[in-house]
Amino acid sequence: MKIKVIHGPNLNMLGVREVQLYGPMKLEDINKNMEMAAKQNGFDIEFYQSNHEGDIVDAIQECLTDGTDGLIINPAALTHYSIAVRDAIAALRSNGMPVVEVHMTNTAAREEFRHKSMISPVVIGTITGFGPFSYHLGLVAIMQVLNEIKMAKEQKQGQ
Amino acid sequence: MKIKVIHGPNLNMLGVREVQLYGPMKLEDINKNMEMAAKQNGFDIEFYQSNHEGDIVDAIQECLTDGTDGLIINPAALTHYSIAVRDAIAALRSNGMPVVEVHMTNTAAREEFRHKSMISPVVIGTITGFGPFSYHLGLVAIMQVLNEIKMAKEQKQGQ
Amino acid sequence: MKIKVIHGPNLNMLGVREVQLYGPMKLEDINKNMEMAAKQNGFDIEFYQSNHEGDIVDAIQECLTDGTDGLIINPAALTHYSIAVRDAIAALRSNGMPVVEVHMTNTAAREEFRHKSMISPVVIGTITGFGPFSYHLGLVAIMQVLNEIKMAKEQKQGQ
Amino acid sequence: MKIKVIHGPNLNMLGVREVQLYGPMKLEDINKNMEMAAKQNGFDIEFYQSNHEGDIVDAIQECLTDGTDGLIINPAALTHYSIAVRDAIAALRSNGMPVVEVHMTNTAAREEFRHKSMISPVVIGTITGFGPFSYHLGLVAIMQVLNEIKMAKEQKQGQ
Amino acid sequence: MKIKVIHGPNLNMLGVREVQLYGPMKLEDINKNMEMAAKQNGFDIEFYQSNHEGDIVDAIQECLTDGTDGLIINPAALTHYSIAVRDAIAALRSNGMPVVEVHMTNTAAREEFRHKSMISPVVIGTITGFGPFSYHLGLVAIMQVLNEIKMAKEQKQGQ
Amino acid sequence: MKIKVIHGPNLNMLGVREVQLYGPMKLEDINKNMEMAAKQNGFDIEFYQSNHEGDIVDAIQECLTDGTDGLIINPAALTHYSIAVRDAIAALRSNGMPVVEVHMTNTAAREEFRHKSMISPVVIGTITGFGPFSYHLGLVAIMQVLNEIKMAKEQKQGQ
Amino acid sequence: MKIKVIHGPNLNMLGVREVQLYGPMKLEDINKNMEMAAKQNGFDIEFYQSNHEGDIVDAIQECLTDGTDGLIINPAALTHYSIAVRDAIAALRSNGMPVVEVHMTNTAAREEFRHKSMISPVVIGTITGFGPFSYHLGLVAIMQVLNEIKMAKEQKQGQ
Amino acid sequence: MKIKVIHGPNLNMLGVREVQLYGPMKLEDINKNMEMAAKQNGFDIEFYQSNHEGDIVDAIQECLTDGTDGLIINPAALTHYSIAVRDAIAALRSNGMPVVEVHMTNTAAREEFRHKSMISPVVIGTITGFGPFSYHLGLVAIMQVLNEIKMAKEQKQGQ
Amino acid sequence: MKIKVIHGPNLNMLGVREVQLYGPMKLEDINKNMEMAAKQNGFDIEFYQSNHEGDIVDAIQECLTDGTDGLIINPAALTHYSIAVRDAIAALRSNGMPVVEVHMTNTAAREEFRHKSMISPVVIGTITGFGPFSYHLGLVAIMQVLNEIKMAKEQKQGQ
Amino acid sequence: MKIKVIHGPNLNMLGVREVQLYGPMKLEDINKNMEMAAKQNGFDIEFYQSNHEGDIVDAIQECLTDGTDGLIINPAALTHYSIAVRDAIAALRSNGMPVVEVHMTNTAAREEFRHKSMISPVVIGTITGFGPFSYHLGLVAIMQVLNEIKMAKEQKQGQ
Amino acid sequence: MKIKVIHGPNLNMLGVREVQLYGPMKLEDINKNMEMAAKQNGFDIEFYQSNHEGDIVDAIQECLTDGTDGLIINPAALTHYSIAVRDAIAALRSNGMPVVEVHMTNTAAREEFRHKSMISPVVIGTITGFGPFSYHLGLVAIMQVLNEIKMAKEQKQGQ
Amino acid sequence: MKIKVIHGPNLNMLGVREVQLYGPMKLEDINKNMEMAAKQNGFDIEFYQSNHEGDIVDAIQECLTDGTDGLIINPAALTHYSIAVRDAIAALRSNGMPVVEVHMTNTAAREEFRHKSMISPVVIGTITGFGPFSYHLGLVAIMQVLNEIKMAKEQKQGQ
Repeated sequence: MKIKVIHGPNLNMLGVREVQLYGPMKLEDINKNMEMAAKQNGFDIEFYQSNHEGDIVDAIQECLTDGTDGLIINPAALTHYSIAVRDAIAALRSNGMPVVEVHMTNTAAREEFRHKSMISPVVIGTITGFGPFSYHLGLVAIMQVLNEIKMAKEQKQGQ
Repeated sequence: MKIKVIHGPNLNMLGVREVQLYGPMKLEDINKNMEMAAKQNGFDIEFYQSNHEGDIVDAIQECLTDGTDGLIINPAALTHYSIAVRDAIAALRSNGMPVVEVHMTNTAAREEFRHKSMISPVVIGTITGFGPFSYHLGLVAIMQVLNEIKMAKEQKQGQ
Repeated sequence: MKIKVIHGPNLNMLGVREVQLYGPMKLEDINKNMEMAAKQNGFDIEFYQSNHEGDIVDAIQECLTDGTDGLIINPAALTHYSIAVRDAIAALRSNGMPVVEVHMTNTAAREEFRHKSMISPVVIGTITGFGPFSYHLGLVAIMQVLNEIKMAKEQKQGQ
Repeated sequence: MKIKVIHGPNLNMLGVREVQLYGPMKLEDINKNMEMAAKQNGFDIEFYQSNHEGDIVDAIQECLTDGTDGLIINPAALTHYSIAVRDAIAALRSNGMPVVEVHMTNTAAREEFRHKSMISPVVIGTITGFGPFSYHLGLVAIMQVLNEIKMAKEQKQGQ
Repeated sequence: MKIKVIHGPNLNMLGVREVQLYGPMKLEDINKNMEMAAKQNGFDIEFYQSNHEGDIVDAIQECLTDGTDGLIINPAALTHYSIAVRDAIAALRSNGMPVVEVHMTNTAAREEFRHKSMISPVVIGTITGFGPFSYHLGLVAIMQVLNEIKMAKEQKQGQ
Repeated sequence: MKIKVIHGPNLNMLGVREVQLYGPMKLEDINKNMEMAAKQNGFDIEFYQSNHEGDIVDAIQECLTDGTDGLIINPAALTHYSIAVRDAIAALRSNGMPVVEVHMTNTAAREEFRHKSMISPVVIGTITGFGPFSYHLGLVAIMQVLNEIKMAKEQKQGQ
Repeated sequence: MKIKVIHGPNLNMLGVREVQLYGPMKLEDINKNMEMAAKQNGFDIEFYQSNHEGDIVDAIQECLTDGTDGLIINPAALTHYSIAVRDAIAALRSNGMPVVEVHMTNTAAREEFRHKSMISPVVIGTITGFGPFSYHLGLVAIMQVLNEIKMAKEQKQGQ
Repeated sequence: MKIKVIHGPNLNMLGVREVQLYGPMKLEDINKNMEMAAKQNGFDIEFYQSNHEGDIVDAIQECLTDGTDGLIINPAALTHYSIAVRDAIAALRSNGMPVVEVHMTNTAAREEFRHKSMISPVVIGTITGFGPFSYHLGLVAIMQVLNEIKMAKEQKQGQ
Repeated sequence: MKIKVIHGPNLNMLGVREVQLYGPMKLEDINKNMEMAAKQNGFDIEFYQSNHEGDIVDAIQECLTDGTDGLIINPAALTHYSIAVRDAIAALRSNGMPVVEVHMTNTAAREEFRHKSMISPVVIGTITGFGPFSYHLGLVAIMQVLNEIKMAKEQKQGQ
Repeated sequence: MKIKVIHGPNLNMLGVREVQLYGPMKLEDINKNMEMAAKQNGFDIEFYQSNHEGDIVDAIQECLTDGTDGLIINPAALTHYSIAVRDAIAALRSNGMPVVEVHMTNTAAREEFRHKSMISPVVIGTITGFGPFSYHLGLVAIMQVLNEIKMAKEQKQGQ
Repeated sequence: MKIKVIHGPNLNMLGVREVQLYGPMKLEDINKNMEMAAKQNGFDIEFYQSNHEGDIVDAIQECLTDGTDGLIINPAALTHYSIAVRDAIAALRSNGMPVVEVHMTNTAAREEFRHKSMISPVVIGTITGFGPFSYHLGLVAIMQVLNEIKMAKEQKQGQ
Repeated sequence: MKIKVIHGPNLNMLGVREVQLYGPMKLEDINKNMEMAAKQNGFDIEFYQSNHEGDIVDAIQECLTDGTDGLIINPAALTHYSIAVRDAIAALRSNGMPVVEVHMTNTAAREEFRHKSMISPVVIGTITGFGPFSYHLGLVAIMQVLNEIKMAKEQKQGQ
């Protein structure tokens, strides 16, 4: 089973950008940690980062055709206004694919405009505030959901 | 006379995405139907779809230089927040080009955030809710407007 | 098949009222154009105008008993506050009758209070901004919907 | 003592309109049930329904001159915007006449715009959500109020 | 020159309705006072009252064909929601007819919902709070405006 | 069949608290009146009052296990903010138990913050404004609902 | 009896300031017209203009000690935010002095922030939109009110 | 190291309450699962549930004196209004104790009033929408945070 | 004469909780200081703290029967949402008992949600921002009010 | 040490203005009471009243150069909109001078627009609702703060 | 050509007031810098500061008669509420005089209430955030505008 | 030292787009003017325009690695919604790079949605409304800031 991880705008700047807020860890290190954990649990994992809303919408849509089984997304700035990303995720969900939203910072403790997520209502669940570890929790979550789906399918086939 | 049709983000997913909401027809079939109807009325027609706001702004701007006489646009998700698309359309309108906005679903009957269109105030008119047939109505509308403009010009020249 | 067209308050003033906004065409001429187009397509058509919300509610309700198959309504001023008209239309819809909303002006480009329609959420679709031609588009739309309903019924009966 | 019952717009459609919401009982049956209950308790009762705000205002005003002692009103759609109906009821109240507001559906559980009543602040009390039985409760309420008024008067006269 | 005076819903109840708020004077007495003052100044005057929004819209529209030169309107409850009345007045104004809005009570000192007038933006001016004398001031105002219009016309013709 | 009646905070102060608003009757007298009426109709009835939101949530939950068939609740101050009480009632409703909300005062005629009820959307119906008699109406309502449920069950069993 | 007229900020610029909006007449001419009309009716009249909120508050307060019987005020820009002016007027009113508010332009047809008057709730009545003639109407109004007060006093003394 | 888990109002009804929303698992089973996972990782764990805001505030405060090292809280209904719970958590945080907020349902996809959390701004991070597995993720999160704190302390002592 | 002092949720944490905000002084020390000052002025004083809204409502109600003459309350977190506490205080006030509200911090300088007090409109006066000294000022205030009441009563009896 | 007391607009009207609201005591008597209390405690005190926002800003600024040690201000009407007064006070505070805000009436129990203070966020603390005694409490408060500052300074110098 | 520079309330406190926000430079030094730069470019320049809204309105009005050609204004606190200042500037603009608004701090990064400027909509342009250098930029801007006006005039005269 | 200038969506249409609003000058001419001025002051300058939010985010990020010392940005339509652009700029600022925002039109005098800038709070300062000259002012501003930074560095090194 394959998991895709999509990082939104400016996450390529981790370790450089507002370090007191986002911490010193770089995105490639976060990805490496996730890859290790995924493999230990028998999952393939693939990473994508872009500052372009359109590229992210494309990448979300491709999940339906590139063998992805579950999506972890940190929509970053796009969280708060990108209805295009929301609609793309809703398209995945209407095809049965699980999606998990993660945020490194505690958005509820930041500026007012970061309190509302256009994305949360169309994902399974959301994890916010644990820094790089938010991604790990998102991975644990999506693996659990995928395992439950698999078991449910096997159970059906067993009948 | 040439009509351009621009489809916004996720409309390439028609037939796949939330089928109970958008119906089973694919975008290429909608385009084919429009092409047939346009040709029957002696109009050239050209189609463009993108998930990228920037590409859509580019495509709108190009109408001024690629021989387009009228634009039909379904801005999809961008309807509700893309001031860039709005400004691009306003640029067309300030150069005398007619623009028609169409939506397949009845946006007024969906989520609160879909009730406001940033685009509607700068187009001639808007058609919402008739599924794929919304595009046909948009085509009928733009052809009528273009014919009226043509007649007005001919009348002027005839004087 | 019979189509009813209901015109809301002050539409009897077309050609007299704010001509720079609504244009010079009179309501009877709009009606004549629609009648011609309806007949060409084999539909009966009937017109009603009133400045009285109550009369309009009555006329909507009568659709259920006077052989009307589909309704085109321009609720005019009532669009923005008449829950009575909305409820009457919802009563039609709950009995399977298609309803189309039309507006001559681009309401989204006018005063703030004209941006919200109490009616749109309960109709099939809405057409705004094409002047008298909005009615023609509404007619094309309702005829399409009625033909689809007819075909669906015939298909069912054919089975 | 005479009780008047006024039914607002579209209540003549009960049994036809959105049956899953309003139930299958017709207005005349509701009225019959109320009549029976009123007579059993020695009250005259009179019914009026109109889709016309103006007629309802007229009917409310007439209570002051046609021997009505108490009013039960289901303002239906008018509940949420008719200041004219509100003012007419306030005129009754300023002349000492008790008024009770009833609704068949639980308006608080429906669309946002049905949550605010322009009428409630000027009536004695409001009953919502019990279907046709809301009217019965309204009748029980107004009879109680009228009996209390009568007793108070008799007590005064007895002094 | 003829002045029409239109009284909105519940103003027929003056002297009966909330007397502590509206005072004891009846509508016919207000009308008589206005008639006397109009005649003294050489103006014809005509009165109309209705509880029906539609009738009031009709009466406003008729001003264009029944020889009315100026309109005084107390829209009463309709002030705050009747876009139909607003649009009818706008139709008069777009034909050059002056309209004056009067209110007996100080609406700014009453309930929140009475603070906004849908009518004020389309009239020449508004007079609020002087009880029956508001009508007299409205009459003085409209006569002045009509005299100015007349003088302007005569001046033009004299040139 | 057993009915539970729950009185929210400060209702133990009836007869002492703001008497001009709530009247002179004490809570025990209201309870006695209800008990008499319930018994006359063959229903058991039980009363509970608390100033503690948590105790009220407990008492609502216990309805599922203590033989209660229907609940009457006057949530008093908690009406406007206690999502805990709302959720507890929703838990009852999801188990098929009918709940009726009553208020002694006309909350719509009091402070703005009393206009919104967190409770109303999850009950069957609401009765407001009739003083102590609101409870009697609530009792009549719940008995009717319980009888209908009983009849429906018997009808099913009879089949 | 003496009437004071207070003109708020920038009214000294009449004839110079935004002439298309305020007209060409100068403040001293408006004052002269009022003086003439006041004298014809046997009233003394006094004028004051200032761009200083504090001076206007002082001038309002002085009415209680300088023999003023009634006040006409055009608070101009201060209308929309000066609670100090409002409180000063309320102080007059609590001492029985009548105050009338006038505006030359139709504030309801201008910017949103001019739609709310902090002053209107504490005056007797308001006149808006009649240009310089608004002042004349204000004068007619205050003279009527003062005459009524005088008559009421004389009637009392006559008893 | 000891972890405390606090469950808010109505969570004792899991398995009974709105099962389609919250699922069939009971609270004691959730607790058992957590206990097993905590022990496997060498953590003590303690559970508390109450429908009483005050008890929950008490339980939060006690963390400072009963040897608790980290808190997991599902404030349930209290999430949206209990400033008392928020302040209690803030008191823990100001003493260096980590707190994690969990929700079983996706609150962003439910009623508007559940979109705002009074608690989120004062916790480290929030996990929503994964059903009973939300608690597991919360546990993984708090154990990670506690281990990081421990390592930091040891590092300091090692210096 | 006896004064009761009620401390709301989390005030038992003073000296522990967010010390940079609330200061280092413990609640018992605040109470001691107040006791000393009360006794010096010949007043009895009694203290109560609870984290339970219900207990605080009970404690407020008991003032009517336990010989309390005046109440000082710091409702803490409950200030901003507890309508139950508000109603309990209103019950005291309607029985003539003076109530003073105190806050240690300057709530107007903290989070937006702390700017509105549900309690302030029903107390005599409010003191905010002086740290522990706010309580002393509250005590000085209530003693003054009680002395004025006493003097007024004695004056009455002396007549 | 010197204390300055600044009274805002219309406070010179105490005893004349809305006596039922502000009471019969005159400003000079309030000042005399404060003077006496200040002197008893060894403080100089100075009073200033103006209806002019600018004068009040000047007076606040002068505190930095005229030997003032602490400021008591009742900004009256200016409380709710004068950012100029706020900024002047902030300038004092940024130079270490304590400022206390007092109000005679309970502003939270008056009109909505009096509920927000532009001043409160920049003062140390606020006292509202105790009539003339609010000033006395303000004096007690500022003297306490000044004594604490003095002690802190002496302690520092003593080291 | 003469430029006037008006400084609003509290700007006389520069160098004293909130130095961390406004910097250490005094107003006279800012003025000196501007004077030097103006003279180098052949412009006269005049400075005015006041804490009095009325004086500032007077000073703005005087521009029309004292030979001023262009105005630079930093309305400071008045920016956010002084409609009087706005109207005075609008009077200048309607007479063709250019006006430039400057702010030293980045108002968009400060308190919410500083985000809205009543002044910006009536000036040519606004410069915010560059500390004392904002004034220099404002000077460069107004000189450019004045030169353009001059050139346009000369061009006209040259024709 | 190198300055980068980024132009947002539709600015490539200058001279074509809404000429009455944006003027006839083309973007390349604006760039040429800036280049000349920059070179005269010894600065390198580089220009970038895109209609793609993502490209603009990329271009902003590249400033950190391509030798850019300061950024001038006209975010155009993106100003009002692009949190991605805001976050990218914040990343620059957190690395000490100065950023200046410019707008050609006076956004405060245009549509409501253009009044709020998502960008302004994270830049040093903003210049709006001076047409093409806004860019020149932005250049003057950034050069000044860069010179100040350089001087500060040199001063440090000189110590």
